[in-house]
Amino acid sequence: MFPYHAPVRDFRFVLEELLEHRSLDLPGFEETSSELVEAVLDEAARLAGDVWAPLNASGDRQGCRLEGDKVQLPDGFIEAYRAYVEGGWNGIGVPAVHGGQGLPEVVASAVQEMLHGANMALGLCPMLTAGAIEALAHHGSDAQKALYLPKLVEGTWTGTMNLTEPQAGSDLSKVRTRAVPCEAAEGDHYRLTGQKIFITWGEHDAAENILHLVLARTPDAAEGNKGISLFLVPKFLVNADGSLGARNDVICTSLEHKLGIHGSPTCTLSFGEQGGAIGYRVGEEGRGLNHMFTMMNAARHKVGVQGIGVAERACQHAFAYARDRVQGRLPKSRGGAECPIGDHLDVRRMLLSMRARTDALRALALYCADQLDVARHAEDAGDRQAAQAKADVLIPVVKAFSTDQAVEIASLGVQVHGGMGYIEETGAAQLLRDARIAPIYEGTNGIQALDLAGRKLQRDGGTALAGLIDEVEGTARALCVTPGLAALGEGLAAGAADLTAALATLLEEGSDPKRGPDAIQAYATPFLSLTGHVLCAWQMGRAALKAMAAEEAGSDDPGRPDPGRPDPFYTAKRQSADYAIRQWLPVGRAQRAVIEAGMASLAAFDPDTQ
Amino acid sequence: MFPYHAPVRDFRFVLEELLEHRSLDLPGFEETSSELVEAVLDEAARLAGDVWAPLNASGDRQGCRLEGDKVQLPDGFIEAYRAYVEGGWNGIGVPAVHGGQGLPEVVASAVQEMLHGANMALGLCPMLTAGAIEALAHHGSDAQKALYLPKLVEGTWTGTMNLTEPQAGSDLSKVRTRAVPCEAAEGDHYRLTGQKIFITWGEHDAAENILHLVLARTPDAAEGNKGISLFLVPKFLVNADGSLGARNDVICTSLEHKLGIHGSPTCTLSFGEQGGAIGYRVGEEGRGLNHMFTMMNAARHKVGVQGIGVAERACQHAFAYARDRVQGRLPKSRGGAECPIGDHLDVRRMLLSMRARTDALRALALYCADQLDVARHAEDAGDRQAAQAKADVLIPVVKAFSTDQAVEIASLGVQVHGGMGYIEETGAAQLLRDARIAPIYEGTNGIQALDLAGRKLQRDGGTALAGLIDEVEGTARALCVTPGLAALGEGLAAGAADLTAALATLLEEGSDPKRGPDAIQAYATPFLSLTGHVLCAWQMGRAALKAMAAEEAGSDDPGRPDPGRPDPFYTAKRQSADYAIRQWLPVGRAQRAVIEAGMASLAAFDPDTQ
Repeated sequence: MFPYHAPVRDFRFVLEELLEHRSLDLPGFEETSSELVEAVLDEAARLAGDVWAPLNASGDRQGCRLEGDKVQLPDGFIEAYRAYVEGGWNGIGVPAVHGGQGLPEVVASAVQEMLHGANMALGLCPMLTAGAIEALAHHGSDAQKALYLPKLVEGTWTGTMNLTEPQAGSDLSKVRTRAVPCEAAEGDHYRLTGQKIFITWGEHDAAENILHLVLARTPDAAEGNKGISLFLVPKFLVNADGSLGARNDVICTSLEHKLGIHGSPTCTLSFGEQGGAIGYRVGEEGRGLNHMFTMMNAARHKVGVQGIGVAERACQHAFAYARDRVQGRLPKSRGGAECPIGDHLDVRRMLLSMRARTDALRALALYCADQLDVARHAEDAGDRQAAQAKADVLIPVVKAFSTDQAVEIASLGVQVHGGMGYIEETGAAQLLRDARIAPIYEGTNGIQALDLAGRKLQRDGGTALAGLIDEVEGTARALCVTPGLAALGEGLAAGAADLTAALATLLEEGSDPKRGPDAIQAYATPFLSLTGHVLCAWQMGRAALKAMAAEEAGSDDPGRPDPGRPDPFYTAKRQSADYAIRQWLPVGRAQRAVIEAGMASLAAFDPDTQ
Repeated sequence: MFPYHAPVRDFRFVLEELLEHRSLDLPGFEETSSELVEAVLDEAARLAGDVWAPLNASGDRQGCRLEGDKVQLPDGFIEAYRAYVEGGWNGIGVPAVHGGQGLPEVVASAVQEMLHGANMALGLCPMLTAGAIEALAHHGSDAQKALYLPKLVEGTWTGTMNLTEPQAGSDLSKVRTRAVPCEAAEGDHYRLTGQKIFITWGEHDAAENILHLVLARTPDAAEGNKGISLFLVPKFLVNADGSLGARNDVICTSLEHKLGIHGSPTCTLSFGEQGGAIGYRVGEEGRGLNHMFTMMNAARHKVGVQGIGVAERACQHAFAYARDRVQGRLPKSRGGAECPIGDHLDVRRMLLSMRARTDALRALALYCADQLDVARHAEDAGDRQAAQAKADVLIPVVKAFSTDQAVEIASLGVQVHGGMGYIEETGAAQLLRDARIAPIYEGTNGIQALDLAGRKLQRDGGTALAGLIDEVEGTARALCVTPGLAALGEGLAAGAADLTAALATLLEEGSDPKRGPDAIQAYATPFLSLTGHVLCAWQMGRAALKAMAAEEAGSDDPGRPDPGRPDPFYTAKRQSADYAIRQWLPVGRAQRAVIEAGMASLAAFDPDTQ
């Protein structure tokens, strides 16, 4: 497997030039300088490239083993996780009030992408912990926060999310795990019994303790969503002084045999085989699903970022292979010499497609993270609300579009390698196998599309998305008047027009009291795809403007071999933007026609005849 | 893993209604009745479903093992292969003059699809044998045919194709394996030394003997393509009476560890470690690559069919899961009850998309097979040439488009299963892993696109494809005047117009002496995708016309529970056609814009800056 080099140059481009370090001007980030951000990115790149990345292939080969109820992680994973904890990385995005370093979400997201690009299976462990931190920070009592948060934020304890049961996947109202309150004399806790499946990093020895956040049903509670509450079930009970007490009644009974992320233990957890696992309610009774949803936005953004990390690594592998592998010859008009395959334009199409899409997805995900920073920290309440409204629309797009594209990018990466791509030792196939989970978990991409087309757009009548489209149109106008970029402006404007039209169709048909819910279901996925294409193209349009200006100014870096000439980074960025808008966006724009074809054949088709 | 039911009903629809059993009227098929064809399909379906399909998952889990230089196949594979041989299946498409049953290619293709859908890894064994049969039948001497063909056609011996070497993949001019003629006293054979990689079914004990067809370079031969000849290297030498002689000097030195098709041994073969493997030249000296290419057309069609087989199985798994899995509720307007996920229109979109694409790919592949039958058997030379010209254009499309789509269909199949799709035991992931090789081998899909956009279209100035487009336009006109199908006619006509325009661009820019070769490289892949979409939509347009007529006539089958009412097969077919033309074709049509965006950014992009 080729090494992984974190794309620090591109992170800097997005943070400094596209987002203009806006977050550093927000209240609360007074101490965060751009130099500090650079240093953080450089350090994270070292951890990712030197410590985590070398374990990616071996972790896949070895996988996890269950011995008794103990999970054996792949060699080196415990040490690599410890290096991460000791470097203080677990708390970088957590507010200082909870013991974190409180860096902006844009910076934390960049670091997350690097870690997932280096080793997605290992990256899942802190990703789940972050969810547990959010759950406790938002909904825990002060006592719970004081007892549990410091270790979680350090990373010496890790967290899990226990939602799924065999009969309760996308439909969590069917959760059956039971939580029964103890007698008053025993304490204020509950006893949980039941089985949870697909629990990521549900059991391991990389941390001293594991805090399971568990959805369960209280006795006599209402059926459906309202009977479900959220519980904290520690692997080891925690004494009042923070020391570890008895082993709780929750064990791992099996590990899943999965297509990918073999280094991440996916556990079936059994609660209460010895009489009931001790659990503490987090937040209000009957509001477990609501509490879970507050942290889902953040988690979904992280899964999108994870997809981008894997896509970036697939790019790096493909470019490295295409540079090294000599096969065939240049056309006679270019000299006819033997050449690396990256010189054949058909292969170069794959490379440029991978690069342009990955860059575009990254820019959009970080734009979204920047909105989250504004939503949390801006002085003005109106600014906060507007940013939150944008982020609410963007998050399902970042999650679903990035992960669908990541699978395609990883698959193209296999293709660039030809026959070698199908051989596991090459590493390209692992990236495809790993990437394939991201469109499924943390709410399938179909659920994301319904969240966007249903809840998010219907509740504000599409206002937030229309605001984003206005910005797309502004960028299109700027491109149109920039010499050399007018064709990009026209392409982007056409995309914006398609999205506007599709939004109108969705709002109109979606609001029909009778056919509305089916129309939303029918149009959701093509609508999300169209939105993703247009917003990614928009980010690349903005990148093209910056790159063109930088190319014209020339490089003033005296350290470059050719000072005064354009930095090739900007030239490549402008070419990627050209590809994204003129050769990738058209495929997305076709989704307007898909929507306008209507829902009749879909509604009439009877899967039972098959 | 769900069982596999061969789609006999759809094969019959395509053969009887779309192709109107044209092949049975050709000279040479006088003895082949439509009843015989039906019986063959039914018998093949039994072999595929009852014998081959149950070994698909276990074969994947067990894989192949190398013990010494012996390959251990998965349990049951030898018996399943023997059942195939004993049933006489290996020779069904081979002309009677070579000992086969000489059934039309359309029938043989249908049987191939079933076998690959049942067990792609096992299906590869006879697929490679078929290539060896073609090579010998076309280029072998009479003595070679007499000695080797009968056992190959029976299937008691199997064949392999030895092309690839580490430095010679897509570029076979770099083959280094050497073949040195023996002293005249020793005989008329050669001694081969060298190493071949990626040899499918290169070693195994399912057959008594293995005949390796090997590309190798003769001494003092010219560099490049012209120095390469084709050799037959039997695993066991064959005595003049057909009995087996000494073990030849060719051994399997390792097996590849692959993403999928674990039940198919992919071997590294070493020739001549003990002084030289005995080989017999097949055909002319220096024309090895040409001889190989004559059989590649057939092999490429088979790989396309293989992709369709896996896509069909992915459909069946997804439909079965979506029928069984209850999750969520219907919209209130449809009663609000708990429902299987296939009732949610977002899931149904995936199902219909899988079904419509698989049906369309099958219809196109069988249309192409039908052209091959005409090309081989028609009385009139003009008819034969016209059909061959069509087939030449269609084959790279069938290979590349079917296999690219099969990967997407198998990936959608994983998605329909949600989290269960990522668990290997479910079986959906295996189909994705297996399918992923098909866009790579037998000429990568990029090579197919270059074959279409370069060799095939440039040599006849696009005449054969233009003829196909004429037929597409004819179908579009027929749809436009059929009540209920006019929208399909308009969609199909628009697709035909896009393809016509893209063809003009490709021919114009491709013929430029300086930029032509790069333009062909730049446009090849989007052009093939556009062609595949339009031709598949065309087949579904033809299917819609037949289905609509049948629906209007009603069923006259007294055995149906509701005689007189339309057979739901036709209703579903019409809905699939609607989806294919109105919701799938638009995505393909976008490839015209991709081509018209030009090649500048692609040509300028420098992969070395990454």
